[in-house]
Amino acid sequence: MRGIFEDELKKLHGKFTEMGINVSEAIYRASKSFIDHDKALAQQVIEHDEQINEEEVDLEDQALMLIALQQPVATDFRRIIIVLKASSELERIGDHAVGIAKESIELKGEHRVKSIETEIAEMTNTVRSMLEEVLDAYVKEDATKAKRIAKDNQKVDDEYARVREKTVQSMKEDAKVITGSTSYLMVASYLERIGDHVGNIAEWVVYNKTGHITELTTDQHPEVK
Amino acid sequence: MRGIFEDELKKLHGKFTEMGINVSEAIYRASKSFIDHDKALAQQVIEHDEQINEEEVDLEDQALMLIALQQPVATDFRRIIIVLKASSELERIGDHAVGIAKESIELKGEHRVKSIETEIAEMTNTVRSMLEEVLDAYVKEDATKAKRIAKDNQKVDDEYARVREKTVQSMKEDAKVITGSTSYLMVASYLERIGDHVGNIAEWVVYNKTGHITELTTDQHPEVK
Repeated sequence: MRGIFEDELKKLHGKFTEMGINVSEAIYRASKSFIDHDKALAQQVIEHDEQINEEEVDLEDQALMLIALQQPVATDFRRIIIVLKASSELERIGDHAVGIAKESIELKGEHRVKSIETEIAEMTNTVRSMLEEVLDAYVKEDATKAKRIAKDNQKVDDEYARVREKTVQSMKEDAKVITGSTSYLMVASYLERIGDHVGNIAEWVVYNKTGHITELTTDQHPEVK
Repeated sequence: MRGIFEDELKKLHGKFTEMGINVSEAIYRASKSFIDHDKALAQQVIEHDEQINEEEVDLEDQALMLIALQQPVATDFRRIIIVLKASSELERIGDHAVGIAKESIELKGEHRVKSIETEIAEMTNTVRSMLEEVLDAYVKEDATKAKRIAKDNQKVDDEYARVREKTVQSMKEDAKVITGSTSYLMVASYLERIGDHVGNIAEWVVYNKTGHITELTTDQHPEVK
């Protein structure tokens, strides 16, 4: 019985990690499509999101089934519950990747601001490495690492504030960039939200270890400097 | 045993509804603070969010406890799981209310565009009534109503597209409104996200009845016309 449970849980965690890798890939491709003005790639991200949604539904079904069939003890129970919670976070990150992809399609032949696009590329790298770190912390059930990752989210908030400031500045200097710059604002805000969702996953890794739900990311929307 | 379970579940659903009403209030006050330039009210919304977060943590602890102690059968099990899932949606809606409140504080003495603020007020009414409807559908376990509410989310997406279009237009016409208008964009995007979270709650109401997780809101980020 115990052996079966451990095997099933291992499968579940394997599927979760797989979903996480797909979501990280989606962020990368969405941001690339935005910066390279690659509408075909953007379209792929949008279509691929359905698969990510299905992965979440599968994970949820299997997690619920495992609880229902195995009636796990409290500690094992937690290890299943975080799959339920963390998979919704991954699904939402996927939604934000779609949001970024849609902005790529919106952008058409708008005037661009290279320096802001560079900042957005950096912001993308930050959130992606945070996501990959939290997936690793998840698999290793490493609460210490998870807490550190949640703190890193401040960096994303700072990058967001910087992009927003630069965008407003560029719109004031040249009205031609206004339409395109609203997309910069949106993409930056999606990346900022992704950072928050990674922070939430980190909270669940900590919960798994401690049994206590702690709000590691209290500031879900950054102050804009 | 059965009687105890039903009583505990009723308590849980009562707490969920209470949390939902607090969140709806937070949306209202956040939007009011934004439109009335009321920084004191905005500050209240930000401070009150901690209570909403605590309400979620309480709900989660109690839901998990109920599963662990009562080992419910599959159908009862679902009725607990949706509390877990729906409460995270409410908590995120609260985060967006905080996002709106922070924009109110940002706005300072910026130039305003009355017509856009009117649209934002309407958008707020739409998402609030959707939220209150879904809370009702939740308590009554009314899947039909939940499906209808999920469809209403299209209206929010349309309102978002309209606000965004108007905002871009006004920024092009008058550079003085650019800084303030970025706040309009953000607030509208928060309200759009709130609509998505309401749609997600609706999905869980349907799941509770059918046992199947269905994506009622496939379009998590609206196309911008």
